[in-house]
Amino acid sequence: MLNKDFTVTPWYVEGAIDYNKLIKQFGTERISENILYRLEKITGDIHFMLKRGIFFSHRDLHKILDVYEQNNKFFVYTGRGPSGNTHIGHLIPWILTKWIQDKFNTNVYFQLSDDEKFFANKNITLSTTSRFAYENAIDFIALGFKPNNTKIIINTKNINNLYPLTCQIAKKINLSNVKAVFGFTNDTNIGMIFYTALQSAPCFIENKPVLIPLGIDQDPHFRITRDIAPKIGKIKPAIIHGMMMPSLLGINSKMSTSQKNSVIYTTDSPNIVKNKINKYAFSGGQSDIKMHRKKGGDPSVDIAYQYMHMFFEPDDKKLKKIHDDYISGRLLTGELKSMTITKINEFLEKHQHRRDEAVKHIDEYVLQ
Amino acid sequence: MLNKDFTVTPWYVEGAIDYNKLIKQFGTERISENILYRLEKITGDIHFMLKRGIFFSHRDLHKILDVYEQNNKFFVYTGRGPSGNTHIGHLIPWILTKWIQDKFNTNVYFQLSDDEKFFANKNITLSTTSRFAYENAIDFIALGFKPNNTKIIINTKNINNLYPLTCQIAKKINLSNVKAVFGFTNDTNIGMIFYTALQSAPCFIENKPVLIPLGIDQDPHFRITRDIAPKIGKIKPAIIHGMMMPSLLGINSKMSTSQKNSVIYTTDSPNIVKNKINKYAFSGGQSDIKMHRKKGGDPSVDIAYQYMHMFFEPDDKKLKKIHDDYISGRLLTGELKSMTITKINEFLEKHQHRRDEAVKHIDEYVLQ
Repeated sequence: MLNKDFTVTPWYVEGAIDYNKLIKQFGTERISENILYRLEKITGDIHFMLKRGIFFSHRDLHKILDVYEQNNKFFVYTGRGPSGNTHIGHLIPWILTKWIQDKFNTNVYFQLSDDEKFFANKNITLSTTSRFAYENAIDFIALGFKPNNTKIIINTKNINNLYPLTCQIAKKINLSNVKAVFGFTNDTNIGMIFYTALQSAPCFIENKPVLIPLGIDQDPHFRITRDIAPKIGKIKPAIIHGMMMPSLLGINSKMSTSQKNSVIYTTDSPNIVKNKINKYAFSGGQSDIKMHRKKGGDPSVDIAYQYMHMFFEPDDKKLKKIHDDYISGRLLTGELKSMTITKINEFLEKHQHRRDEAVKHIDEYVLQ
Repeated sequence: MLNKDFTVTPWYVEGAIDYNKLIKQFGTERISENILYRLEKITGDIHFMLKRGIFFSHRDLHKILDVYEQNNKFFVYTGRGPSGNTHIGHLIPWILTKWIQDKFNTNVYFQLSDDEKFFANKNITLSTTSRFAYENAIDFIALGFKPNNTKIIINTKNINNLYPLTCQIAKKINLSNVKAVFGFTNDTNIGMIFYTALQSAPCFIENKPVLIPLGIDQDPHFRITRDIAPKIGKIKPAIIHGMMMPSLLGINSKMSTSQKNSVIYTTDSPNIVKNKINKYAFSGGQSDIKMHRKKGGDPSVDIAYQYMHMFFEPDDKKLKKIHDDYISGRLLTGELKSMTITKINEFLEKHQHRRDEAVKHIDEYVLQ
């Protein structure tokens, strides 16, 4: 989906994303106060990522709530294109997925599209993307998913589970559809052209409605799925769209696994995190302390603040204090960075322990 | 591949096929006297379908003979698109495959592309093509293949065996390649666009050179395979091209499973065969007996004769006598048809017994 100022496609995100414009461009709906109210009534709770609008847009989320309120089941599907190690931005939709699973008692399917990333990147091998699939799966499991209600789908390994469904879907999608949605050209390889059918397939892996939490860049795939669902006698998938976590370099750059110093990996040591935040995290502060005390900082462009807001400070009151202190100049950039480093490292310490545990159990999760 | 007079593509064959023109159009090589001589030297024998030019064209067959003469191994791959029951025309490449297996002691892989036929035909379901895959497999096994050196690949069932190879292939084929070779348009579904990579995959299932006996209509797939093979570090597949068996209606129409009265199925009873040949088989004879005795018949357009020539009369001397008697008018159309009916029914009686046996053993052949 091209735009003057920014670009958001499943394989390429660049520029200052205007999420309001994306809602219009993609034809999605904003998550309304009414939806949040209904969610809170059901769950007794609203995840801070929903409350703060990190998840800001949806398709048919109200229908999923209807299903649940009528005592019917739905399931949850999300995924990852394993082109590299997991960074903290990848975890955001998975964390919301876990919250939904806990609150609604659903099955979860997690797709790792090692084939897609092989098709999309000229210089990556299939054994590399398959290896990253297992790496990423470990992070997913470490978030607390249990094998009794969570299944991991690694495309090259589980293709036998997906292929008959994928065929049903692929037959209903023609070349003009994928050209229009993804901008494919004569140079596009036929793996890429076919792939969207594989990303659709888990939407129908259970004969129930599905809810998909994802970064909004992945929405185009499911726009196609929603078009063809009625043609194969299936229910359109519902979606919750999340924002893209910005890289350390600034709010207008998405975390990319190809720029190692712009992202924080789930396996980074405390010192690496400290160095990356201190050295690379774009600051909304003033050029010197005196000026900062006088004019205050700008949390809206400050990466340390944004990471607290999006992920690492779930407590609204504490976050508000940080926000207000930063704007007023009471809180310095160095202090804000230090708080953020502590929070990230607290999270990662626990996460890395859970990773060590997860790696022993991965086979229990992979679909058989 | 469009032509003024005839059309030959993997999904559509029509008109009076000029096989000499096809050799030029497709850029293949005629099977030369020299190749036949080398084949005879190795095997002590030439299968009548080779001697009579039913298999008339090839790519790199001499290289396969080089491989064998250097005491190296190759393997054989053929297949079928299971859009309906097996007719006698389908058996031709499989019979040559069996001969090659016996003479060269090779492994054989037989692909049943239930996915392809589902993608290609608007009104067929995947469960129907999968059912026909098993039906067709029974006929293949009935020709005498043994499970120790013959494996059947049913695409939707064995996709896990094929998919990683298929990905390697698909990444090297772009949209312009398949548009140029198959004439795909914006209306083509993405299953069809991707499928050629799946038909290529078994070419590389063993790390040895492969020889593919097939009807020449399938050549376009392997033209692509041959283009990409060096790009993925593989040997180009070698091919032997066979003619298409004409339908009962005349030498210019290919047997099609969609016209039930124009083809002889492997499960037809003796009476059905008799009726089909007597009623529908296009005759090269004259309009009445007197005229026939005087002017003689034309074996080159006579379907009964053509079936004897292509399949049912392996004995060259006997075939020559039929040919000469028919041309001279000594042999009447009714007599020729009667001989052909006898031959077909003799074959089918044995074949149907072997089918009854094959059906019990199918699981031993399907790739695990």
